[in-house]
This record gives sequence, C-alpha cells and structure tokens, in this order.
Amino acid sequence: MSLISDLQGILSADQVLVGDDLLDRYNHIWEMDTPLKAVAALLPRTTEDVSAVLKICTSHKQKVAVHGGLTNLVGGTETLGDELVISLEKMNRVLEVDPDSRTITVESGVILQHIHDAVEKVDMFFPLNFGAKGTAQVGGIISSNAGGLRVLKYGMTRQLVLGLEAVTADGTIVSSLKKIIKDNSGYDLKQLFIGSEGTLGIVTKAVLKLYENPTSRQSAMVGINDYSQVVAFLKHMDGGLAGQLSGYELMWENFYSRVTTPIAEVKPPLPHSYKYYVLVESLGTTHTSDQQRMSDLVEEALEKGIILDGVLAHNQSDLEWFWKIREDVKVAVSQMEEDQHFDISLPIPLIGPTIEKIHTALYSTDGVEFLVTFGHVADGNIHLIIGKNSPDPELTATINDIIYEPLQDIGGSVSAEHGIGLHKKAYLHLCRKPEEVATMKLLKRAMDPDNILNSRHLF
Amino acid sequence: MSLISDLQGILSADQVLVGDDLLDRYNHIWEMDTPLKAVAALLPRTTEDVSAVLKICTSHKQKVAVHGGLTNLVGGTETLGDELVISLEKMNRVLEVDPDSRTITVESGVILQHIHDAVEKVDMFFPLNFGAKGTAQVGGIISSNAGGLRVLKYGMTRQLVLGLEAVTADGTIVSSLKKIIKDNSGYDLKQLFIGSEGTLGIVTKAVLKLYENPTSRQSAMVGINDYSQVVAFLKHMDGGLAGQLSGYELMWENFYSRVTTPIAEVKPPLPHSYKYYVLVESLGTTHTSDQQRMSDLVEEALEKGIILDGVLAHNQSDLEWFWKIREDVKVAVSQMEEDQHFDISLPIPLIGPTIEKIHTALYSTDGVEFLVTFGHVADGNIHLIIGKNSPDPELTATINDIIYEPLQDIGGSVSAEHGIGLHKKAYLHLCRKPEEVATMKLLKRAMDPDNILNSRHLF
Repeated sequence: MSLISDLQGILSADQVLVGDDLLDRYNHIWEMDTPLKAVAALLPRTTEDVSAVLKICTSHKQKVAVHGGLTNLVGGTETLGDELVISLEKMNRVLEVDPDSRTITVESGVILQHIHDAVEKVDMFFPLNFGAKGTAQVGGIISSNAGGLRVLKYGMTRQLVLGLEAVTADGTIVSSLKKIIKDNSGYDLKQLFIGSEGTLGIVTKAVLKLYENPTSRQSAMVGINDYSQVVAFLKHMDGGLAGQLSGYELMWENFYSRVTTPIAEVKPPLPHSYKYYVLVESLGTTHTSDQQRMSDLVEEALEKGIILDGVLAHNQSDLEWFWKIREDVKVAVSQMEEDQHFDISLPIPLIGPTIEKIHTALYSTDGVEFLVTFGHVADGNIHLIIGKNSPDPELTATINDIIYEPLQDIGGSVSAEHGIGLHKKAYLHLCRKPEEVATMKLLKRAMDPDNILNSRHLF
Repeated sequence: MSLISDLQGILSADQVLVGDDLLDRYNHIWEMDTPLKAVAALLPRTTEDVSAVLKICTSHKQKVAVHGGLTNLVGGTETLGDELVISLEKMNRVLEVDPDSRTITVESGVILQHIHDAVEKVDMFFPLNFGAKGTAQVGGIISSNAGGLRVLKYGMTRQLVLGLEAVTADGTIVSSLKKIIKDNSGYDLKQLFIGSEGTLGIVTKAVLKLYENPTSRQSAMVGINDYSQVVAFLKHMDGGLAGQLSGYELMWENFYSRVTTPIAEVKPPLPHSYKYYVLVESLGTTHTSDQQRMSDLVEEALEKGIILDGVLAHNQSDLEWFWKIREDVKVAVSQMEEDQHFDISLPIPLIGPTIEKIHTALYSTDGVEFLVTFGHVADGNIHLIIGKNSPDPELTATINDIIYEPLQDIGGSVSAEHGIGLHKKAYLHLCRKPEEVATMKLLKRAMDPDNILNSRHLF
C-alpha cells in the first residue's frame, strides 16, 4: 500500500490534507505568502493518532516535519516537498486546571494565551510570556524550551514542565503525566524531549507548573554608564528583593534612543545621556510595601553611586510606559528594509566588554546602518538587531561571524532561547564541542534510527 | 596485559588500591564495619585519569561502581567483589567562585559543606542543604539529583547545575562548563547525567548556580486538623510571600508528639492537640518588614479559620527551637532497633487522604510499633519512618507494599529524592510505565553498550 492510503486508513478524511487542501497552509506565521510544500499535512486528534501515524512513517521511512504554531525563529518548521507534516493544531484541549496541585494539563496544540486564560479563571499564574503567545503552541514551546520575559524569577520552559507525554519515531508513547514536583525514580525522560526541537519525539501532552498569582508589580528605570555597575546593580536589586526580582532588562543607548525619539511615539523617562538603561521589575503581593522597597533600593543605589539616575513607575500608566519602551522592538526596526536578529548568551560580567567589541566591529562594516541592542541581562541573554542596506549574503555572513565568533572563547551560546533549527547549524560548533555533538548524534540514532523526525535539524 | 597492570600503567601507585590497601574502605558511610569488596579502588586526580581508566575498563568489559561521599540511601554505592570502584575523592578542588557570574565551579569530589564555606566568603548563597552535607560529594549529589530543605524556593539539584563535565563508559569526555543560564544550542546533555545515578557517565566537574545571600529568615509553626486546610495554608503563604516562601514542612501528630515529649529534650511550641503541624520559613532581606509580613499572614490565616493555632519565631533562638523539632529525626527513631525509611512523592491535594489510608493499614499490621510521618509538602514529598519489632523480611515486604502500591493509581513516585539504586528496583514499575523503562534501557544501551557503569542499578 502507498503511504497516503495507509494514512487514510487510520485517520479520517479531514485529518489527511493533500493536493489543493494544502494550498492555504505554510511554513511560518510570518511567511504566509509562501505555500507549504509537503507530501501531506496530517492533523492528529489524539496521542494514539500520532503513534499510529509514526508507525506508518517508520515503516515507509517517511521524513516528518512537526508543526505547532509556526512561530519558530530558526527555520524549525520549514519543510521540503518530500516531507510529511504533522500538525498538532487539533490537539488543542485544556484537559485540567488543578489549583491545589498547582498544575494545568494540556494537549500540545494548546496556544499559550489559552493557558493564561484558563489559569486566570482560578486566580493563578503561568509565568511563561513572550511576544508570540497568541499563536505559539505548547508543544513547540516545550520542544524549543522557550524563555521570554520572566526567566529570572520562574525559569525557562524546562523548569515549568512537571509531566510530559511524547511519541517517539517508532510510535512508542512515552507518557508520564504526573503532577508531582520531585520524582527521582530512574531517568527523567521528559528532559530528552524538552528543547530537542522535535528531533527525538513529538510532544502530545504536558502537565505544567502554576504559581500563586502575584498581585503587585513594581518597576523602575535607571541610567548607568559603566557596565560593571550594571552587574553591581543586578546584585543589589536581586539581593534586596530576595526572590521577587522578575525582570532585569538592559537597553543599550542605541536601543533606548531609537524607541524614545520621534517617529517613535513614546517619550523618554530618563534623558538620552547614559550608555545603559536598565528596566527592573518586581512581582509581589503587597503593593504599598513593595513600592516602598523598590524605591528604597533605587535610592540606596543612587547614594552608593551604583546608578547615575533612576525613575520609579508610580502607577499602572507609568508601568505601561516603561515596558512599552522595552517591548517596542518593532518601532526600533520598522524603518529598515533589511535586518538580522540575534539571540546570544554570554556570562553576565563579560556582556559589556564583548558587546562593545562587537559594536565596534559592526559599525566599521560597510552596509551596516544601525544597531539595536537589548536583553535579559540577568539571564545572560542579549538580542541584537542589525539594520543593513543590502541582503547581500556575504554581508550576512560577515555579520554572523562578527557576532558569533567571540562567543566560543568566553563560553557563550549562539542560541540562548530560539534554538538551532535549520538556520544556525553552521554555528553550532562555536558553542558545542565535537564530543558533545557526537553524543547528540548518538542519542538521535538511538531514539530515531531512521532519522525521520525533523531530520535536517540541529546537526 | 591484565586489568590491574593496565591501570597501574596510567595511574600512580597511590591511585590504585588493591589487596590490603582496600581494608579500610567501605560501601556506605553508615556501614563502616563491613569492608569493601572490589577488584580495586581507583582514585583519579583528573578528568583525563577518569577517561583513561574507563577506556581500559571498556576494553576489559570491567564493571565499575562509582563512589562519592557514600551517603546514598538506596544502595547506590554497594559493590560486589568483581566490580572496580572509582572514587572521586581526590578530585576535590573548588576551581573558581565567580560572584558576578553568580557561579561556583568545582570538581566532583568536593564536599557540599566546602561549597557552602567557599560561597560564604563572597557573601553569596548556595541553597542546596541536607543532613549529609558534611560528607556528600557534589558528583553524587548531581548523579542523584538531590533535594533537601530548600527545594520549594530554589529547586532540586537539576535546577542548580549550569555546566557539567562527565565521562561516558568509553572514556569520552562530554564537557560543557559554561556559566550561562540559557543555552538552547542543541540537546541539553547535562540533563542525561543529572539524576541518572552514575549509569550514563561519571560526573567530573560542575558549574553551579549561586544566589545573593538572603539575610532575613522568618519562621512560624501552626496547628491544623483538616488536611484541606494544609493545602489552603500553603496557597495562602506562598501567594502572600510571593517567592520568599522557602520552607513548608508538615509534621503529622505522630512525629510532633514524639520529638516534643520527654525523652526528647525539646518542648512543644504548640500543644499536642492538632492533627497536623506546619513549619513555614521565609527567606528575605529586610528583617523588620519580613517579620511583620509573616505575622500578618499567620494572623490573617487564623482569622479566616485556615489554621487553628500559630506561633511566630521572634528571634534566632525561637528559629533554632522550631527547626530542631523538624530536624530531630534521630530522636524520633532512636528508641527502635528496627526501622524502615520511605521517601515518596504524591500530588499535594492527595497527600492527606493517602497517608491516612497508609497509616490505618500500617497500624493494623502486626509488628509495626510506631510511625513517624513528615515531609516537604509544598514539594509533594513525604518521608515515613516505620518502627517495627522484627527484621523479618516478610514484614518488610508487607510494609513496602502498603506504602508503595497506592502511589501507582495517583501518579506518585516511590522515590522523591533518594533515587532507585539497588534497593528500590522492585518498585520502579509502580511509578514508571513499561514504555518508560524500555526507553531508559534504550538510552543506557546507547550510552554504555557493555553495561559497565553502575551496571546493576535502576532497572
């Protein structure tokens, strides 16, 4: 029997899309003008569907591309015409919200925003939060170990997954949907599937960890000229807030000026005279004393000379104002035709000097028009956006080299949050040793001997 | 060439213990009257030593038992006479404390207490803490993903490891000693070695995550009769302390009475009239307002009827008093000749009713003399100690069944913290499905095809 008829034998007609039914599908949410190329797109409704499909794929040695919300930034959902797409979009049920166990159990096609909505109803909090939350699905979020804005206090996705169900290439369902926090009974298999970008199995369900809802949010913006004081201020605030510091976002002057100068709509809360701007955030539950605490700590940092200037968010509208500045990345880049985005990791004390060297090299590169630099400094995670005057691949490669190469010697990473996917494979060797890559390949061969799952990814 | 002469060819004489040199060695810190049985004990000084030794072991298909501080509670360091012991005790250097990166880098033979000492010198904090800290070595701690007293706020060992170096069975050094918090560049290989009890590789070095030092510690002890209020009080305190709740320890009446009634030396801060006693702890930095906050929250819980009684630790001596009660496990069991210890995980809301059923079954079992029940409720982790009048193996098995069997249906675990080792293998199937165990075996075969590393462990 052929592959398609095998698949049609186990799935209903609306779950097997071929031919014209594929025309309105695509690889990425931002590339909806390019239609999907694939043998077929399958829409399983259950874990058992996924298992049955993968058994058939294995028997046909059919390559599979796994699709979630298609928001991946490193080509993770790009497909070739000879690949079969499995999309989890029909597995989109919130199975249980359990406020006493402090868990939510979901299928992997559930969109992050829907988790937030379900959790809000029981006055609890799921901390994972990032720009694509209205589209990104939990299966993709887990497979790419997403980070976002609250990693400092709550960790990356890996720390928020208590239980997991995944299907491996041969159709085996590896399921442990437990709500327990501690389980040292043998290997913690979920770790295999978290962050492995769909190469070791397809995530089908998850039990996620919830938190009590923080009701008080405080922020302040400060100006600093010396990077070592950025580190000192982090230690000062994190120490002083003792577990309530939830954001420590650094903006270089190039970012801050751009988003607070017309044509940007937002005004600057601090003058354009500092080299670094830090936006801090705390999450607590007692508004008045939390605000006082933030104020005391900023005042103390001024007195000690750690910071040069500081302004507190006195109310909700200040909060929104300050955070609009940090989140207004689109305004920062909207004037450019061509740009390159980076998502790198560095040891915290080396961020300042390393980025300075990178800036110098980029500014002296023909074709580079502007830089925008910002990041989650407490996590060691910096984003750079480079505006340029040409899509010239040689320029692209030059910029990649300038940014990625310094990371090797200082123990950094070419991908803090976004993954390797298809786009960053050429740079993996800069942050992983040959023995590490060999061990990854060993695991891949053990778990997926025919290399059918996201077969071109990572290495 | 023979195995021993091969080993003597690469290690110095004081690193290869055979014959009489083995007489003062043993399997476990609590069993120093039983000498070690082993082909030899090797004391590598470097990662390269470990690698060279494992290459030789692989070529001889020699089984290896990995030794750290020998404090493991599930037989993880027991050896047979045909096994070769590799002890990491000479790899005991603190390589770097970096307060700005907020990391400490250590060799795996470093004792936990020495990490605390090194970190204290730079006014920072390493949260991992448990009874055996003066003896347990970091390699064993990582291999068993140790928990302890501060998991609620800081996580288990897995969450505290940023970088790891390990040597696999064939001698490959898999090293990523990075200080960065986020790294989504391919598989997170350290997760393989954390918690896999030395079966997939020998940990040789680690980069651990440090925290700013909390300077204010508050505690309160409360009495509750209804388990659902134990859950409500947890949510009340964790919500109200917003990231500063660091301990939520539950003692059943059987534990509390025993440790606060003569011959115990400690007096009870609350009368012996409640079913449950909860000891809460917060870690912050502003003593006066933290104490006020603890007081307000306990007061509020009294007013709402969540708790029946409560007493605050007003000073350091109260703190020590309250915590002596919780930590006085030895007093609780010192009168008995025979006992069995348990370390189980359950979903938080099911702890009360499940333990009640277990208590009933145990009290009606001939030979059971007393029970002592306590645990880290916020982590879902309960410890039971059963005092009994006989070492009869049938009684032991009956008690094991009474405690372990209910865990299967409720998604619990037979080992929250201690691991499976050799002693809990018979119960692994109660908390891990056949497909999970098969996947564990698949990984073991891929990473250690000759099954030389801790070869009898886990499954």
